[in-house]
Amino acid sequence: MASQFPAVATDAVLKQSDPVPEDFEEVKGIDYSKDSAYNMTAVDLISSMKNMGFQASSVSKACDIINQMRSWRGKKKSELPEHEQTGEFDDEGYQKTTIFLGYTSNLISSGLRDTLRFLVQHKMVSAIVASAGGIEEDLIKVLAPTYMGEFSLPGKGLRDKGMNRIGNLLVPNDNYCKFEEWIVPVLDKCLEEQEAAMAEAGSNGLNADSAAVWTPSKLIDRLGKEINDESSVLYWAHKNQIPVFCPALTDGSIGDMLFFHTFKASPQQLRLDIVADIRKINSMSMAASHAGMIILGGGLIKHHICNACLMRNGADYAVYINTGQEFDGSDAGARPDEAVSWGKIKADAHSVKVYADVSVVFPLMVAATFAATKP
Amino acid sequence: MASQFPAVATDAVLKQSDPVPEDFEEVKGIDYSKDSAYNMTAVDLISSMKNMGFQASSVSKACDIINQMRSWRGKKKSELPEHEQTGEFDDEGYQKTTIFLGYTSNLISSGLRDTLRFLVQHKMVSAIVASAGGIEEDLIKVLAPTYMGEFSLPGKGLRDKGMNRIGNLLVPNDNYCKFEEWIVPVLDKCLEEQEAAMAEAGSNGLNADSAAVWTPSKLIDRLGKEINDESSVLYWAHKNQIPVFCPALTDGSIGDMLFFHTFKASPQQLRLDIVADIRKINSMSMAASHAGMIILGGGLIKHHICNACLMRNGADYAVYINTGQEFDGSDAGARPDEAVSWGKIKADAHSVKVYADVSVVFPLMVAATFAATKP
Amino acid sequence: MASQFPAVATDAVLKQSDPVPEDFEEVKGIDYSKDSAYNMTAVDLISSMKNMGFQASSVSKACDIINQMRSWRGKKKSELPEHEQTGEFDDEGYQKTTIFLGYTSNLISSGLRDTLRFLVQHKMVSAIVASAGGIEEDLIKVLAPTYMGEFSLPGKGLRDKGMNRIGNLLVPNDNYCKFEEWIVPVLDKCLEEQEAAMAEAGSNGLNADSAAVWTPSKLIDRLGKEINDESSVLYWAHKNQIPVFCPALTDGSIGDMLFFHTFKASPQQLRLDIVADIRKINSMSMAASHAGMIILGGGLIKHHICNACLMRNGADYAVYINTGQEFDGSDAGARPDEAVSWGKIKADAHSVKVYADVSVVFPLMVAATFAATKP
Amino acid sequence: MASQFPAVATDAVLKQSDPVPEDFEEVKGIDYSKDSAYNMTAVDLISSMKNMGFQASSVSKACDIINQMRSWRGKKKSELPEHEQTGEFDDEGYQKTTIFLGYTSNLISSGLRDTLRFLVQHKMVSAIVASAGGIEEDLIKVLAPTYMGEFSLPGKGLRDKGMNRIGNLLVPNDNYCKFEEWIVPVLDKCLEEQEAAMAEAGSNGLNADSAAVWTPSKLIDRLGKEINDESSVLYWAHKNQIPVFCPALTDGSIGDMLFFHTFKASPQQLRLDIVADIRKINSMSMAASHAGMIILGGGLIKHHICNACLMRNGADYAVYINTGQEFDGSDAGARPDEAVSWGKIKADAHSVKVYADVSVVFPLMVAATFAATKP
Repeated sequence: MASQFPAVATDAVLKQSDPVPEDFEEVKGIDYSKDSAYNMTAVDLISSMKNMGFQASSVSKACDIINQMRSWRGKKKSELPEHEQTGEFDDEGYQKTTIFLGYTSNLISSGLRDTLRFLVQHKMVSAIVASAGGIEEDLIKVLAPTYMGEFSLPGKGLRDKGMNRIGNLLVPNDNYCKFEEWIVPVLDKCLEEQEAAMAEAGSNGLNADSAAVWTPSKLIDRLGKEINDESSVLYWAHKNQIPVFCPALTDGSIGDMLFFHTFKASPQQLRLDIVADIRKINSMSMAASHAGMIILGGGLIKHHICNACLMRNGADYAVYINTGQEFDGSDAGARPDEAVSWGKIKADAHSVKVYADVSVVFPLMVAATFAATKP
Repeated sequence: MASQFPAVATDAVLKQSDPVPEDFEEVKGIDYSKDSAYNMTAVDLISSMKNMGFQASSVSKACDIINQMRSWRGKKKSELPEHEQTGEFDDEGYQKTTIFLGYTSNLISSGLRDTLRFLVQHKMVSAIVASAGGIEEDLIKVLAPTYMGEFSLPGKGLRDKGMNRIGNLLVPNDNYCKFEEWIVPVLDKCLEEQEAAMAEAGSNGLNADSAAVWTPSKLIDRLGKEINDESSVLYWAHKNQIPVFCPALTDGSIGDMLFFHTFKASPQQLRLDIVADIRKINSMSMAASHAGMIILGGGLIKHHICNACLMRNGADYAVYINTGQEFDGSDAGARPDEAVSWGKIKADAHSVKVYADVSVVFPLMVAATFAATKP
Repeated sequence: MASQFPAVATDAVLKQSDPVPEDFEEVKGIDYSKDSAYNMTAVDLISSMKNMGFQASSVSKACDIINQMRSWRGKKKSELPEHEQTGEFDDEGYQKTTIFLGYTSNLISSGLRDTLRFLVQHKMVSAIVASAGGIEEDLIKVLAPTYMGEFSLPGKGLRDKGMNRIGNLLVPNDNYCKFEEWIVPVLDKCLEEQEAAMAEAGSNGLNADSAAVWTPSKLIDRLGKEINDESSVLYWAHKNQIPVFCPALTDGSIGDMLFFHTFKASPQQLRLDIVADIRKINSMSMAASHAGMIILGGGLIKHHICNACLMRNGADYAVYINTGQEFDGSDAGARPDEAVSWGKIKADAHSVKVYADVSVVFPLMVAATFAATKP
Repeated sequence: MASQFPAVATDAVLKQSDPVPEDFEEVKGIDYSKDSAYNMTAVDLISSMKNMGFQASSVSKACDIINQMRSWRGKKKSELPEHEQTGEFDDEGYQKTTIFLGYTSNLISSGLRDTLRFLVQHKMVSAIVASAGGIEEDLIKVLAPTYMGEFSLPGKGLRDKGMNRIGNLLVPNDNYCKFEEWIVPVLDKCLEEQEAAMAEAGSNGLNADSAAVWTPSKLIDRLGKEINDESSVLYWAHKNQIPVFCPALTDGSIGDMLFFHTFKASPQQLRLDIVADIRKINSMSMAASHAGMIILGGGLIKHHICNACLMRNGADYAVYINTGQEFDGSDAGARPDEAVSWGKIKADAHSVKVYADVSVVFPLMVAATFAATKP
């Protein structure tokens, strides 16, 4: 065995580094010398996570971005030329950020519904994009509860009992029967209104200004009005006139009911047009003086908000929270920087992706931002 | 240090096991004593992966299920009562499986488009559900190519050059300009037809049988016809009358174009109704004598096929391939057994989930099944 | 289009469910009617996450299990037969849980080090298993800081500057040069002691009771003593005589230094025996009256604690936090239930896996458990 | 509704792109016009995946890199100065790449063991790093088989029957009893040899050249010799003198047996030194004229090979295959570019990470590279 010192190895291992730039920030964690380190509050926790590294830092950064999008103020409405008097304004008339909130169906099934409702109830967001389940499960929960289960419960036994599983949650199938009873009269009414408007409009019934054309967002607004219950996200969205977009509204229980309704209504048929809604969401994006995105989950709801923000050449703020990965080229897993290449997020925007199940981070994040103080 | 023998530990470590049941199958891999183990063919590889364990076994099982769904035959059409003469039949008139194929946008952007087209060209599937990008990127690729890139290319530089990134792929933004030029005249024509039908139908224009109502699947069929190019999935879908469903068709470039078109067309407006399409896909599911699902990716396309199969009380075969995980309660990550609890997959169905990026397994899987022999 | 009502579909969709069992718990979230819902404290947040579903529920359950393992008490030592007077006892002489804490290297590199040190400083855990980096990075941080970086910083530029990247952290290579200066005299001393003991023991030098044999845990204890700094996990582990196991201690910078030291020391050579350490950890497991596992991350440290708990026919409590998935058959991704099949976790144990980056959940979890009140 | 054309949107959506650079490669898939597109061979499939995008491209690139590391040739040994006559040479005396192969335990449990054995049997790799299970499961499989199971089999029932689960595989506990019977006499013999050497060496027994010191790699070599069965990876590693490193060899069944053996052997004790092995693997890295890494899985085995390659200032080729993600800052999930920052992979090396379960891609990859032709 040679005893010669291995220069190649020591050179590689003990390579000297350049001086550390002055603006470098040291990694650090919670300072347990402080009394406030015990049973910490949300704001203190998030603050301590800033330079903790990995996703702790991303969560903290996401809260910073949320605070930025909430606190940004532009010019006073009265000082703007009329064609620029669009988008959102605060109570004193200053421009503020139009915030697009997206979420997937499962979050409404989970206890996060209460947090999402809180945001809508207090007008903390400007528009919502949800998947079909994100609409109907909100309504169904007014009619009957969802229960805790286990990820590993075998499907056959559940089906025999009429228990539908969503991750570690269970929804009795009776809930969907109750939903059917509740929604059919609403759909009947909608069809009636459609037909009345058609009778009036005749061959102009599909025109841009036609009252005969239902869209997903119009139907959702009506459902929020009809459910008339303060526990509901859609109730508050209706009340506060926050539009809720769901281009594939037929992809779930509402779709089942619409399907059944085509038989009941024949030869008439309720229609849902998705072109008017794409005009509506894109118009909101263009009108916004600043635009922020908070996107919880992946798939359609993520892409739809990003795509709308392309219409304004990019969002100014973006917070993604999901578990998707980019390696399979999915939009669900794409980092904010991929959206920058498309012009959906501005190159100089504040953006972050938090790699986590929404349920473990969003309650804490909301507690440290939107709900840091009582509204 | 005690030298006493640790009985609790040895009992736990050296616990005797019950006899191995006779039907247990040994784990084994490739037999390199065979000449066919070198530069293996797809069929031999898949066969060798059967008892290899982990996802190798899942891939092999998925191929078995695909072969089963393809080879299943029921009764002869002529011997069935008329109301049961629905669904798919082979050339000799025997019932065969209605196969629903779902895929996300990114797969059409990738080289898998050629494989998906192969399946459609040779009528190997019965219906398709895709996301909006899965429609438009097929058309755009006829107009101009997509290129190889890197996952790590910075977004700002790409946007400056007009290069849109999809994972490790790049799409020049000019491709979308070409698409706009191509599609606007088609949309003009569609609007013209809508208005002509409305003029005729008047206040009955929204009725079930109205020719005035465009739906996503009708528009997609038209686009497939217009593109008229054998490299296109949609061309063959039109040619072979394989319906292509896309409830959120506005969520992408086609949506951008429809948005712009609302300005051009005003006060008229092209409409896309999603209710007729939910009736159409659900009806296919109910009509099918057997139903199989091959779902590549997650999100809307996965849920939509599963939901349609609820209408027949469950699919008979299900193959999922995606990278989603169930821990966040997402539908994207749900195992087939979650769909069993909902009645979307039959309890005794043949089903499997392959945890993999579609691009690494589907080419091999198709080579060993649909393309094991030249059609 | 047939107008017949689709019975197969309505039967499937509107299937009645069995009555909901009385012990079912409703999904619910944060109650924003309470003043405590604003800038929530850790304990309140964790409590609100209990029936929220998905990983929120898992995080809450993990905190319950941690509280259970901390509060369990058995018999009084003085009332036990002598051979059962093993394991851990509280200040009043009652049996308590032996808690094995495992963590991967990156967590020490991150700001979580302060949290881990807090646990060790206050004797809240009984033994530690770490990977090599989890040892050396604790020491190095006493010598020089780690800095915040970005996941996307290109490697070439960093190497040119001597900046080593760990996720979104940066460690100047000079830190390792400082470490080399610090550790070489310690290794010299260790070798000296080894040789002195060998001179005394002669051919008995490898016997069970030999003072000549260094092991990873003995060397780590020495390093903790030598670093003599209250910011260090290992300092407190030494101070509180909490053993730190690291069977692959050579797999990192300490290994580099030991490698270089073999040249310096030749023909002598410092040795590190791993057999004595497996006896030591297994003996602790057998001696424990109750055993709990808190395992942060995957790989060696996860398997090592589980394997030690097999020696007692299973741990009584188990909390895993990691991002691994089971589909690839990795031990890192295996659920607690896989360890049950091996006898590493008892069948009736309290166990949970939290699917999350440790950094986003462990600060909150510790704040709601170990650090709910000031020790 | 304004009918003014939205310029900001059209400018953003229809932004012109720079001309496509000439060296851009078009995305393309399998050409089904060729007869070879049916039941494709491994080489053809891999070739077709090159420009397919996503992980298909990564798999294809990984095969290119494997072919490059295998085909690289340097200078003739006889023309080199003596101190450079190190590393690997081909049959004609030309320098070739030293290939480090790493794999985790589960791969040996799976049917991939046959593929790994094929590589070792035909001297296609130079050194191996495995986790403890990767050693013992190879030996145990000679004594009794492993069986196919399911990921969802409940742990309690399995433990009752003595069936240990590894993902979707099952190992009867009797296999470990058989292993104990087989290995105890070997350990007795090793202890005997240790003590004989100590008797001779006395207080020099720990010196660098001492025959008394067992290391993991020496014990593994002996185990490979003793098992004496052509189905075993370790048998061929012994036969072909390919060193197998496993610094944490005690972390599994061998550790259990060594633990029990300490009671049987007392007051003597078999020892395993890990310092000599770190010198051995680092020396191989420094001696190599070119170094390549093929790392299957994450954790210790990944880091250990990378760390060894730091001793030569970086590997020349690197192929990672695993399912880890970088977002949690784990080494398991780190991309090759993180290793570049450490000097573990050369900045100009050929490297790739394939994001996949090894079992779904490695059989195909080996079939298209190492096993493209019969050796």
